[in-house]
Amino acid sequence: MAVYLDYNATTPIDPRVLEAMMPALEEQFGNPASTTHERGRMAADLADMARDQISSILGRSGHDVIFTSGATEANNMVISTYGLENSRFHEILVGATEHKSILETANHMRREFGLTARTVPVDSNGVTDLVQLEKMLSDNVELVSIMAANSETGVIQPIEHIAKLVHGHGALLHCDVTQAVGKIPFDANKMDIDIATMSSHKIYGPKGCGAIVATREARRQLKPIIFGGGQENNMRSGTLNVPAIVGFGRACEIAIGDGLDDVPRQRALRDDLEKQMIASIDDVTVNGVDAERLPNTSNMRIGGALADAVIVNSPGVEISTGSACSSSAMEPSHVLLAMGLDRTAADESIRMSLGRQTTQDEIDLAVSEIAMAAKFVRKKESEIPERMV
Amino acid sequence: MAVYLDYNATTPIDPRVLEAMMPALEEQFGNPASTTHERGRMAADLADMARDQISSILGRSGHDVIFTSGATEANNMVISTYGLENSRFHEILVGATEHKSILETANHMRREFGLTARTVPVDSNGVTDLVQLEKMLSDNVELVSIMAANSETGVIQPIEHIAKLVHGHGALLHCDVTQAVGKIPFDANKMDIDIATMSSHKIYGPKGCGAIVATREARRQLKPIIFGGGQENNMRSGTLNVPAIVGFGRACEIAIGDGLDDVPRQRALRDDLEKQMIASIDDVTVNGVDAERLPNTSNMRIGGALADAVIVNSPGVEISTGSACSSSAMEPSHVLLAMGLDRTAADESIRMSLGRQTTQDEIDLAVSEIAMAAKFVRKKESEIPERMV
Repeated sequence: MAVYLDYNATTPIDPRVLEAMMPALEEQFGNPASTTHERGRMAADLADMARDQISSILGRSGHDVIFTSGATEANNMVISTYGLENSRFHEILVGATEHKSILETANHMRREFGLTARTVPVDSNGVTDLVQLEKMLSDNVELVSIMAANSETGVIQPIEHIAKLVHGHGALLHCDVTQAVGKIPFDANKMDIDIATMSSHKIYGPKGCGAIVATREARRQLKPIIFGGGQENNMRSGTLNVPAIVGFGRACEIAIGDGLDDVPRQRALRDDLEKQMIASIDDVTVNGVDAERLPNTSNMRIGGALADAVIVNSPGVEISTGSACSSSAMEPSHVLLAMGLDRTAADESIRMSLGRQTTQDEIDLAVSEIAMAAKFVRKKESEIPERMV
Repeated sequence: MAVYLDYNATTPIDPRVLEAMMPALEEQFGNPASTTHERGRMAADLADMARDQISSILGRSGHDVIFTSGATEANNMVISTYGLENSRFHEILVGATEHKSILETANHMRREFGLTARTVPVDSNGVTDLVQLEKMLSDNVELVSIMAANSETGVIQPIEHIAKLVHGHGALLHCDVTQAVGKIPFDANKMDIDIATMSSHKIYGPKGCGAIVATREARRQLKPIIFGGGQENNMRSGTLNVPAIVGFGRACEIAIGDGLDDVPRQRALRDDLEKQMIASIDDVTVNGVDAERLPNTSNMRIGGALADAVIVNSPGVEISTGSACSSSAMEPSHVLLAMGLDRTAADESIRMSLGRQTTQDEIDLAVSEIAMAAKFVRKKESEIPERMV
């Protein structure tokens, strides 16, 4: 089996998570909305237990959880809240390196509903430009959406400072914590997030499940985007995906529990990976190197070797050119472009993301295979007169 | 364990379906959007296999499948298509007894975007009034949304006739087939549906998964409601829920395969249930009795006994007052009201829905428990001077 170094795209389900899910996949199959009978109420109890496990991720109680089909839907719901009828009176700010589910929803709302959605720039390390953010903040701004950590580069945003600025202007802070959960500790009292969105399958939970975790006050502002039976207090209609929710809850519990114990090991492996890559291949640079970064993520540019070609020529290593979502798109990474890389530099960058199953042997193997591929690709590219992209 | 007669709310997962899902829940955990590596492409292949299994439910090839988190989201997407910016030029027709995910989305679009969404009435048996439908059809109408079979009453709509009328006026026919799949055979050539929506967990598949199945032409008209990574050809962003999709595919295959073999048995049990109920309890009427109905569903009014009270007093039987979605709402069933029942009659109606695990013993037990409960409730209610609702 090839070496999997794409944990930021998706993670395998933790066996303890699957074990927790099995009863709900087998006997406890009730519909939580069937409140007229015991089987339905039991299913609702299972979902509520997961609600507690998930809200505790932000380190304090009193948060409301709205279950969604994933972080993409959760992000859509948060941003769409400001896109209705009278949206021309609304203004939101979104980070330049946010996930596409934020940026594309903002684009849609801008285009179709005239929402004012402005983009907060990042510096060359991918860190939010706080001076610019402060300039852009005004009393018109209702929401600022800046992620905790970037999926492509691992760059961590200074959420504590951002929260202070945002709240100082009376706006709400939405933070997509999808990639940060289980990789960095959260001190919610310092970070002071109003609305967090997250996904189960990035933290060794099942696919098809995500959540919005919000303070009660912030939740009151949110508007549904899916209508019907009125589940989740009319905020998200549709039968709750109980088995996935149970798994998500357990995955959260592990992620902020003993899951964190493995983080130093992953950090050491990642640091070694970068050291080896730089030692084995000429002209390797780490994107976002001077920023605080997730311990499991590395985004590296191999000068003179197109990432797509390097990846094709190292079939024993499973990595990506950026986020999984845009793997099939031919566009360069919007994250790297926002950091000031030119198109060539962006196209020469690969993302490697480690996980709980990653071993030293795998790192060694990956480096040697990628080094060979880079050499081969550079030779090939030097043979053709002009690069054909 | 109590007798479960609420299969229209949700079904247990078929063991063969769970077996098919297990590899995707364990080793084959890839993200189908990770097209840069084998594990991702394998996951995409799994989803594509399910796509074929699901599109074949409409009996002919050439249909496109868009995966969603369930029928609710699928219905939202179809109806929302006609709700954008220039929606004041659009007109759609929706059946009076449609699922809330149709009616509430239409309401939302009407209220927020000025969409013209008119309601097609049903007769006292719950069958679409074809004369009225024909009168309401005009060149302005772009979409007619009428379900194949009702979840509360089991009443089957004359889709074949409806399709002819709708197409005669150049409109598209959307049909929510959620409750019909696996219960009645589909002859797609006769039924001629342009867009079908469905759910996995109603056909012994996992929760958290549904689909839009559409002709290529109809699909081109649809617009996304969830934005981001551009999955499903930009129609539905978000990581595909591969294990659930695999299960959904297998569940479809069974539902239109040997799953249909059990239908005559369920019909006989349902008919016996109604016979026994009428024999054991005074003043029982079957709602929609003169219509063609699903073989597994019975909606019965027990005169003089509020359904909520009957259900509370028969804890050994798990049934509902209507759709699971509105079980927690205090409103009377909009389906029964549309059929001309008054509020009291609607509040005295229970839904019983059978499934593959239902046995004759369970039917006998259910009738005797409900008969006792009805007697008890009637006695109680006769003792209080005025009914307190």
